[in-house]
Amino acid sequence: MDSEQPKEIVLDGIAASPGVAHGSAFVILQKELEIPVYEIPVKQLEHEKERFEKALLEARRQIAEIRHEISGRLGENEARIFDAHIMVLEDRALIEETLREMEDTAYNVEYCFREVSNRFIEAFEALQDDYLKERVKDIEDVSRRVLQILLGQTQRNLMELVSERIIVSEDITPSEAASFDKRKILGVVTDSGSRTSHAVIMSRSLGVPAVVGLHNASEQLDNDDYILIDGYDGVVIINPSEETLFRYGELKSERQNIQRVFETSALLPATTADGHRLEIGANIGGPEDCDAALEHGAEGVGLYRTEALFMQQDTFPDEDEQYKAYSKVAEMLAPHPVILRTLDLGGDKHLSDFFVQNENNPFMGFRAIRFCLEHRDLFKDQLRAILRASASGNVKVMYPMISNAEELIAANLLLEEAKAECRAKGQKFDENIQVGTMIEIPGAAYICDLLAEHCQFFSIGTNDLIQYLLAVDRVNDRIAHLYEPNHPAVIRTLKMIIESANRHGIHVGICGEMAGDPIYVPLLFGLGANEISATGTVLPEIKYLIRKMKLADAQMLAQEVAKLTDPHAIHSALTKFYEAQMRGVLEQVD
Amino acid sequence: MDSEQPKEIVLDGIAASPGVAHGSAFVILQKELEIPVYEIPVKQLEHEKERFEKALLEARRQIAEIRHEISGRLGENEARIFDAHIMVLEDRALIEETLREMEDTAYNVEYCFREVSNRFIEAFEALQDDYLKERVKDIEDVSRRVLQILLGQTQRNLMELVSERIIVSEDITPSEAASFDKRKILGVVTDSGSRTSHAVIMSRSLGVPAVVGLHNASEQLDNDDYILIDGYDGVVIINPSEETLFRYGELKSERQNIQRVFETSALLPATTADGHRLEIGANIGGPEDCDAALEHGAEGVGLYRTEALFMQQDTFPDEDEQYKAYSKVAEMLAPHPVILRTLDLGGDKHLSDFFVQNENNPFMGFRAIRFCLEHRDLFKDQLRAILRASASGNVKVMYPMISNAEELIAANLLLEEAKAECRAKGQKFDENIQVGTMIEIPGAAYICDLLAEHCQFFSIGTNDLIQYLLAVDRVNDRIAHLYEPNHPAVIRTLKMIIESANRHGIHVGICGEMAGDPIYVPLLFGLGANEISATGTVLPEIKYLIRKMKLADAQMLAQEVAKLTDPHAIHSALTKFYEAQMRGVLEQVD
Repeated sequence: MDSEQPKEIVLDGIAASPGVAHGSAFVILQKELEIPVYEIPVKQLEHEKERFEKALLEARRQIAEIRHEISGRLGENEARIFDAHIMVLEDRALIEETLREMEDTAYNVEYCFREVSNRFIEAFEALQDDYLKERVKDIEDVSRRVLQILLGQTQRNLMELVSERIIVSEDITPSEAASFDKRKILGVVTDSGSRTSHAVIMSRSLGVPAVVGLHNASEQLDNDDYILIDGYDGVVIINPSEETLFRYGELKSERQNIQRVFETSALLPATTADGHRLEIGANIGGPEDCDAALEHGAEGVGLYRTEALFMQQDTFPDEDEQYKAYSKVAEMLAPHPVILRTLDLGGDKHLSDFFVQNENNPFMGFRAIRFCLEHRDLFKDQLRAILRASASGNVKVMYPMISNAEELIAANLLLEEAKAECRAKGQKFDENIQVGTMIEIPGAAYICDLLAEHCQFFSIGTNDLIQYLLAVDRVNDRIAHLYEPNHPAVIRTLKMIIESANRHGIHVGICGEMAGDPIYVPLLFGLGANEISATGTVLPEIKYLIRKMKLADAQMLAQEVAKLTDPHAIHSALTKFYEAQMRGVLEQVD
Repeated sequence: MDSEQPKEIVLDGIAASPGVAHGSAFVILQKELEIPVYEIPVKQLEHEKERFEKALLEARRQIAEIRHEISGRLGENEARIFDAHIMVLEDRALIEETLREMEDTAYNVEYCFREVSNRFIEAFEALQDDYLKERVKDIEDVSRRVLQILLGQTQRNLMELVSERIIVSEDITPSEAASFDKRKILGVVTDSGSRTSHAVIMSRSLGVPAVVGLHNASEQLDNDDYILIDGYDGVVIINPSEETLFRYGELKSERQNIQRVFETSALLPATTADGHRLEIGANIGGPEDCDAALEHGAEGVGLYRTEALFMQQDTFPDEDEQYKAYSKVAEMLAPHPVILRTLDLGGDKHLSDFFVQNENNPFMGFRAIRFCLEHRDLFKDQLRAILRASASGNVKVMYPMISNAEELIAANLLLEEAKAECRAKGQKFDENIQVGTMIEIPGAAYICDLLAEHCQFFSIGTNDLIQYLLAVDRVNDRIAHLYEPNHPAVIRTLKMIIESANRHGIHVGICGEMAGDPIYVPLLFGLGANEISATGTVLPEIKYLIRKMKLADAQMLAQEVAKLTDPHAIHSALTKFYEAQMRGVLEQVD
């Protein structure tokens, strides 16, 4: 062995996003901003205040943009962190104290704002309250953003990343995650162990590998160290040997070949070997997601999260703005169906009020249909926009968070009112627009026979359904291990809903994360689901899988799994089935 | 009509606690405290600081006492508000700034503390954050308490209530509710409309009538106005006429006679007219509740909430302390069974950490069995204490928040370890102690056949079960109307659990609020429940009801109700059945 060659070091972490990458490390260590301090002549004070105001507006714009991006791509839950950032920007105490500081000291705004925000941070830290300590991170992040704008600096890293690199960091803030030049990121390594961190979410959405839980990798590694990361097995190799690189080269090429094979199925129908077809939809956040969805083989939109449009701006979008977005999606997808889910948010009329989370248990709180039925004008604006869009394509409407028949009936009455209003204005719409119900609350699951009388289709939101069924907040790291799609109660409940829907002649789709994980798709189809809807990228693999398998086999699998009582046994039966169907892929590659 | 006689005025409100009362109004308006200001000689400063420290300790003691009282009598949820109060007392910023203020100004501690806490309140109010605004109320309440202690004043009202009165208030703070001389309260009237406010909780626990939602009664009424309140129909009558008083006199006497009739059944078995017996247990918080439970006819304890003991002090009670309480209850109830529910709390080892609620959705968070399985030493302390108490009576152990079979198996393994440890020390215990599972998570309900393999009894906690089934935080006023025991999914789920338990030969009890509401008891018994457990006061009525009815009729009722799909129809069928059984009561009175 050449003593010149640096020693290969293998670090074990947690696989967080699949894939293999190798390249130079880009180690992010939080750099202190250098804040100048100088006196401002009295006549310049107004100008200095203006600079401050502009910086606050720019920061707000940036955050709203990031929020929108995350909301559309990854959904509302992920985007909510930025609500707290906007709250900091709206904090009158912070702003007014900065202005007062400028007047009192006659120092420049950067200096005064840094002083005041540091004072706030210290005050919050002293308060001995974990909730407020979380706020400290938000204040730090926002304060840094405002200071960088004032200093004319772009967010760190964004520009520094001139070549393709593997990001290595203690953890990545949401702002950083959103500010990266995505094309330059080969992979992500973090010290922090969270599989639900923003670094991981970003990696998954970019389709690059991530390994987390490396404890002190950001200290162990230097900038430009050559590393290889294996996001399948959760391994980071510093100074990989030629042999290691070769071995992983094979692995990666194999995986890529597999992906290429999957993509040959993208534009074919998802018809099983025994001739049964599963409808394949995409989950989208707006018109900007439609091209990718179609390229990946979506045959419609199974879930259009309309919240994104609502979170983009300070006021609710009016009917026309909504109509514009909805009809564009309807046109782009036509003749395929587009299922628009009505507003799934809490809060009050103005955007800024969304940010106020003053509920003890917001997941069991005042949101979605509960909110819409108490803000009827707002809800009818959306319903009319949806109705009008139905003239441009194959549009369906779906209500979230339905927990009883009364809510569904009330929503339908408002839909009828909206129809009458459109008719009165001579606006065209699909008179027979189909109405659907999200089944995501256990109470709704267990009365789905009653709900079937008032709608034409169901869409099962597995994420929330599992959360309520098991009383597990899946965003809470401490109990995340209890969030278990393979729990026998989950399987039984899915079976019950789907069988009930089949019995009542109701179309049933699945739009939660289970639908996007190929190992669950045969089970869902075997239980009798008509459609699955997921993020575009996974659709080619799902189509390939469906085309390889027989529905009869999936039905036998579903029967077998429904009898199993151990989550591990359930998971392993599903994995075994999946692997058996996929065995052919490698042969096709060769 | 005599023009001298003041006019009778009828105010319509919301019935919140049943009963009729008449008497003089005691109107509570928040009075400003008069805070003296004077300079302190330098040599007295240490003494002044000592006064402050003592006042903080006394405030802490008072709050802990109130917390304990509320927790034991009304349960943990109600008691949690006081955690926030303790947090304020522990706020270093508040304390240190007061000390600094005293040093800087040399003014007396009352003045400095008031100044500093007002500054905090203003700062929080300026923050434009509803969460923090809620905190303002806590700071105000605690600050008032500390100031009153410093001024040597008792809490307002406590001493002022020299004669029996009807309390009239905008709303009553938890501190006030806890500070009243309970024997002097005839009834409660509040402007605020919440049926879950502390005023209402206090009224119910005292068994006095309450009417809420009067909007501006506290302004309309003067101290010593003569009023009559009807807690059955939600009416307040100012200056009731003789006729009105007479009419309500009849009503009250009738109700009292009915209660007396009920009490004749208290010590008889709850055996139906056709010879089937329902077991009747009491829900208790500790030894202090046993006498009342036995007097009301409890034939055991269906739910011993062991949390109260844990919330009383700064550290967790050790095994011996727990043993003392548990064995006392076991002895007092022997030979009746006592079901001890293991710790149903979140948090970390020390009490003060309980106060930190840093979870977004604590109801779906890290608590109860989830907490105990990760704090095994603590959990085993409790299990050993329970085991040792089983030598003193008929003791059973029950685990809360079980969501899957793995948790139940893990808990049982720890119980076996605890048994081995007791054996090794030669400590006596019931080798065959029965183990039970709370069924309060939908996922557990739908695998109760699997849970039945690992325990001897179920106890259905309807409050949490309904909450998760319907995704409704019942403490959240904004959506409290969606919390619906008559929801068909609730009835179906109860039926499914009870039938599954019967099929597997598992004893099944109900210990949530539905078990304490007589209209649901025939349904629960008709579905096949073996036991109901509720607060002592309602047991005589339940026993009377059971002794009047036939199980065969209740079974028919259960079959009928299980087919109904409308919550109103379900409620009305149950009420009709209840009223039919109770028709005889009045005749007996006459």
